[in-house]
Parts: sequence; structure tokens; C-alpha cells
Amino acid sequence: MDRRSFLKKASLVSGAAAASTLAAPAYAEGKRTLKLVTTWPKNFPGLGTGAQRMADRITAMTDGQLTVKLYAAGELVPPFESFDAVSTGTADMYHGAEYYWQGKHKAFNFFTAVPMGLTANELDAWINNAGGQELWDELSGKFNIKPFMAGNTGVQMGGWFNKEINSLEDLKGLKMRMPGLGGETLRRLGASAVALPGGEIFPSLQSGAIDATEWVGPWNDLAFGFYKITKFYYYPGFHEPGAGLAAGMNLDVYNGLSKAHQAVVQNACMAENNFMFSEFNAKNGAALETLLNKHKVNLKQFPDDVFDAIGKKAEEVVAEVAEVDELSKRIYDSYIKARKDIGDWGRISEQTYTKSRDRVLG
Amino acid sequence: MDRRSFLKKASLVSGAAAASTLAAPAYAEGKRTLKLVTTWPKNFPGLGTGAQRMADRITAMTDGQLTVKLYAAGELVPPFESFDAVSTGTADMYHGAEYYWQGKHKAFNFFTAVPMGLTANELDAWINNAGGQELWDELSGKFNIKPFMAGNTGVQMGGWFNKEINSLEDLKGLKMRMPGLGGETLRRLGASAVALPGGEIFPSLQSGAIDATEWVGPWNDLAFGFYKITKFYYYPGFHEPGAGLAAGMNLDVYNGLSKAHQAVVQNACMAENNFMFSEFNAKNGAALETLLNKHKVNLKQFPDDVFDAIGKKAEEVVAEVAEVDELSKRIYDSYIKARKDIGDWGRISEQTYTKSRDRVLG
Repeated sequence: MDRRSFLKKASLVSGAAAASTLAAPAYAEGKRTLKLVTTWPKNFPGLGTGAQRMADRITAMTDGQLTVKLYAAGELVPPFESFDAVSTGTADMYHGAEYYWQGKHKAFNFFTAVPMGLTANELDAWINNAGGQELWDELSGKFNIKPFMAGNTGVQMGGWFNKEINSLEDLKGLKMRMPGLGGETLRRLGASAVALPGGEIFPSLQSGAIDATEWVGPWNDLAFGFYKITKFYYYPGFHEPGAGLAAGMNLDVYNGLSKAHQAVVQNACMAENNFMFSEFNAKNGAALETLLNKHKVNLKQFPDDVFDAIGKKAEEVVAEVAEVDELSKRIYDSYIKARKDIGDWGRISEQTYTKSRDRVLG
Repeated sequence: MDRRSFLKKASLVSGAAAASTLAAPAYAEGKRTLKLVTTWPKNFPGLGTGAQRMADRITAMTDGQLTVKLYAAGELVPPFESFDAVSTGTADMYHGAEYYWQGKHKAFNFFTAVPMGLTANELDAWINNAGGQELWDELSGKFNIKPFMAGNTGVQMGGWFNKEINSLEDLKGLKMRMPGLGGETLRRLGASAVALPGGEIFPSLQSGAIDATEWVGPWNDLAFGFYKITKFYYYPGFHEPGAGLAAGMNLDVYNGLSKAHQAVVQNACMAENNFMFSEFNAKNGAALETLLNKHKVNLKQFPDDVFDAIGKKAEEVVAEVAEVDELSKRIYDSYIKARKDIGDWGRISEQTYTKSRDRVLG
């Protein structure tokens, strides 16, 4: 997943325009308007609609005392400047994915998703109950931001390929669109991973400029129409096993809110975190059925030895993030401990239950 | 799971005492107090603490304009009369498990958990995005109640046994504590399922009055100390694969709230739904480690043929609920369709990912 495509035009918004918005918060009849910048196009399914729902939750719960005005990518600032905009107070909040800020600090990756990392439920368990939020507060606090989990896509698909992947050899020289730590993992295995903007994926796949691409999951992939070019749809994705979406609020703005309004913001984010993941699960299920039955997509699982080689290489790539500094090390250690402890429970609960249920239902 | 044990003393609260609370809502300085009755002992870990957090979310977000006062099981009405109390307006809200009301309508089972049914994520997806909430509103509306999902325990464990379960023969005559549709399933396989109150489980297991028991999961089971009597701890539970906890509000009270306060109640429940499940996942993981490493519990998986026979029988028991009336049929059909569609997605996403990750990590 990478939303650069949508953000391309948006990036042309000038810094000057953004700077002009540096003004006192708008108060009118006791109502305050909070500027929410997002890294998503307006109402982009799942992510953009989720950001809008989060905004609307806050506005509705406060009867407009806090009116959250959403700016789609580029409307107020270029999307990848959302973090700086909130950090400096140009905007009050952002909704996006924390790994977009890895240029600020590489440890932000852990608060979205890393290859071979936590699933959505595991991420929530870590954040809420196993030290994750405290570490996140510490990291984001360095940038004057208060962070909240506010959505999740669930496990992303492995991607669309123009040929079958039968061995590690098939990855050598493969031109695949995959950004971030996942792409770095593939490069170390001899693939040529590129970070194409979303809007360029379809024509690139069609022309043969790339051989393969990942995007999100059935719901979003169906809309992009990749099935028209290739029928090999691989699972599971190793690169984003439960991509968390986040809201960040300027720390001074947050600290200046009443306790009640702080609670509204917290609960709006947590509610949307629950809702968005449930939406992806419901809509991915329905879209998968359409892809398989209507569009005759060839759903394939990566061979074990291929997945395992990718997974082992990914472990090395992710471990290197811990070497950045002392805080990265603490975040990495806490994350890996959560993967072990919470993963041990998942193995004998959901994992075994769903597998057993499948067997019974045939 | 069944919390009768905790509720035993509570049941002695007289109806007269409850009736005396039938009074106008308390207003003071523009503040309104909402009476929240629960089926849990005060601050019972996970369930009682979750109900308290839900109450506190509402109070905090409204700065006390809606002050939610929690009554533990029996403090205002006997716990299993919580539903009637809210239906008639004796109380404003309850927090409990919908299957406690199956005497009112058997279809309430689907909004907590049924054997071989939906996991927590699947339940949320069904409720939020695949028609579940609408059906639930229709069912609860018949009783003047507006329902919300407000917590989940995740997959429950199969239980503690005083002997190994190697074949279906081992279930014959087995005296096991398991209430509800799960217990009915076991009875049809020749076991003697009983619905003992929680407080009687430990002594009954110790004296040999029962041979086996289920409760919730590692976190709650560790606290009960079953490991002191038997070391055979079986997984996965077939009976409650993701027990949803619910809040219900008197429909007249709900309709009388401002739109802002309705939004607060909705979001408080949805946020707690997210938080409680993440707490069970985090704490079950840690408790499981303690049970295995410190208390040397013998963790065992049910043999496939045993689980499958139980599962097939459970399918019959659950299907019978659809025969109650036309609404039951629609709820059952919608639930089963969700299990198929959302389950298909889960199989190739979380299920395959976590299994593959386990293989890589060893």
C-alpha cells in the first residue's frame, strides 16, 4: 500500500499557501473549528471515508463545539507534510499512516505495520495493553504530537503477478511495485522493487513495465481492476499484516482541550479503529467472492519455502530499525515481545478455532 | 462462561427494593444520572471493569452531563433481571451478555456467541457492516431496547479436564460444566453437561462431582486456580468463539437524548468494544505463559475427530434456533452468510498469515 498516486497532484500545493493558514484557532459562538489534514483523497474508500467518520464522530459528540473540518490530501498542505503541519500548528490534527513519517524517525514503522509483524488485533493489544501507547507517546511527543490508533486495513494481500511464483528464483529480477521495508526485503532477494504511485500501477502492469504489484486487499484491489490484466492473485502478504491508521493531534492543542473534549477525541479514534477494521473485513469478504466467482481470478498461496525465505529476510530488515537509537531499540523489543506473547495466545485461540471450524464446515 | 456464581448472593435482592427505584430521572444542575445495571460483580476483571470503563467514557465525554452510575449485579436488581429492568425503565442501561436473555427470545444467542459461530472480528464485521445491527435493533426493539456491541472476550478455551480426551468415547458420561447451546451439544454426544455457578466449580472439580469445566480463557482461568486440580487444559473451545458483550439502553431514554448524547453513547460502546478485546488478547497471552511455564499446565488440542464430531452436532443445535420464528430465521441466515463470506476472507488473510509467520519464527 502506498497512496502517493492519489497525492501527486496534491503535492503541487505551495508551501506559501500552507503558511498563510498559520492563524489563531477559529472560534464562533463558542464553537471551535479544528483543521484535520489527511493523507487520503476525499472519501477514498476505507481510508478517506474512515478519516471523515472520525471527524464526524468528534463534531457530532460535541454538538459542533469542536467542529472538525477535513482537508483531503493537498487541500491545505501536501499530504506528506501533514505531520509537519500538525507538529508546527498549521493544522490541528492529521489522519494518515505513521510509516509515512519514517523520514522523521524510522521507528514510526512499528505504529503502522512492519513485515512479519503484528496483526490488527495484536497491534491493538500492544498499543492499549502492553506498553505500545506509552512508547508511541514518547516518540510522537518529540515532535509535539499526541498519537491515537484510528483504523486498520487488516492483513494485506501478497499481490498480483503476471506469472506463477514457484520458487525463490522466480523473484530474481522480478519488477514489483512494493514500497517501504517490504520492498527493501524483496530487493535483498534479487527482485527489483519499485515504489510506483498508485495511479501508475495499472498502466505499468499493462505495458509490462512492472511484472507484479501489491495494493491493499480485495475491496480496494477490485476497484483498481488489476484482475483485467493478470489473474494470479497471491496470499498472504508478508509486508503489512495489519496496517494501523493513526490520528495525531498537535500536543499544545490537545493539552488545551477540556478533559471532556480530550475524552471525545480519544473515544472517536478508538471507535473508528474498531469500525474501519470491521468494514475492511466485511467488504474484503464480499469483494473476494466477486473476484473469484465473477472475474475468475486465480487465487494462489505462496509456496512455503518462498514465503519462509522472504520472512527470514524481512526479520533482518526489521531488526535493523532497532539500531537507529535507544528509543528504537526499546520500541522494537516491546513490539517483538508482544508478537511472542500475544501471538502464542492467538495460535491456540483464533488460529486453531478457525482452522478447526473450516474443517468441520468443509 | 456463565457468571451465575457471582450472581448468587445478588439474586436475593428483593423485587420490592428494585421497584422502589422506579422514579423520574435524577436531574441536578443540568446533570442527568443514568442508572447502568450490569450482570457482573463490581470490577470483575475484563467484564466488570469493561462495563465501568464504558460508563466512565460517557461520563467523561459529557463532563458529567450524563453521569452513568454503575450498579453491580444485584445492587439494584438481580442480574438476570437487568433486561426487564431496562425494558420497563427501572434502569436506563445494562451491560451484559445477550444470551442471558435467550428466555425472552432464543435469537439473542447470535449477538453474544454460538457454537461454531463468528469470531470477535467476524461478529464486529457482521454487526457493523453486514446487516447484523439492523436485525439486532429489530429484535431488541420488540423489548423497547436499543442495543450496542460493547466488548468481547475473544475465543474461549475448551476447558479443564481430569483426564485426556482421546476419542468421542471419552465424552460419554463425562460430567462437564458447560451452560447453554454448548452444553446442549455435549449432552447430545452423551456427556452430562451441567450449568454450575462459577463459585461452585472449583470445589466440584476438586471433589470429583464434575470431571471437567470450561470458564473463559487463560487470564480469568488462572485467577480461578483450576491448574491446582488438573493439568489438562484443552483448546480450542467450540462453544464461544468470540463472546460479544453488549450494552442495551431503554429505547425511550435513548430517543429522548440529544443527537450529541446519542453519539456519545454509541462511540463509548464502540470504543470499549475495541479496548476490552485488546485487553483480553494482551492478558490472555501473558497468563498463558504463566500457566505453561510456572504452573506446568499440560496444554492439549482436542483430537480432530473429536472436535469435528462436536462441531457437526453443534451445527444442528444452532440451526434449530432458526426454527423459532420468522425473525430467528432471518437472523440465522444473515449470520451464516456472514460466517461464509467473512470467513472466506479470514482464511486467506489472518489465518494463513499467522500460520506462515509461526513457521518462519519457529
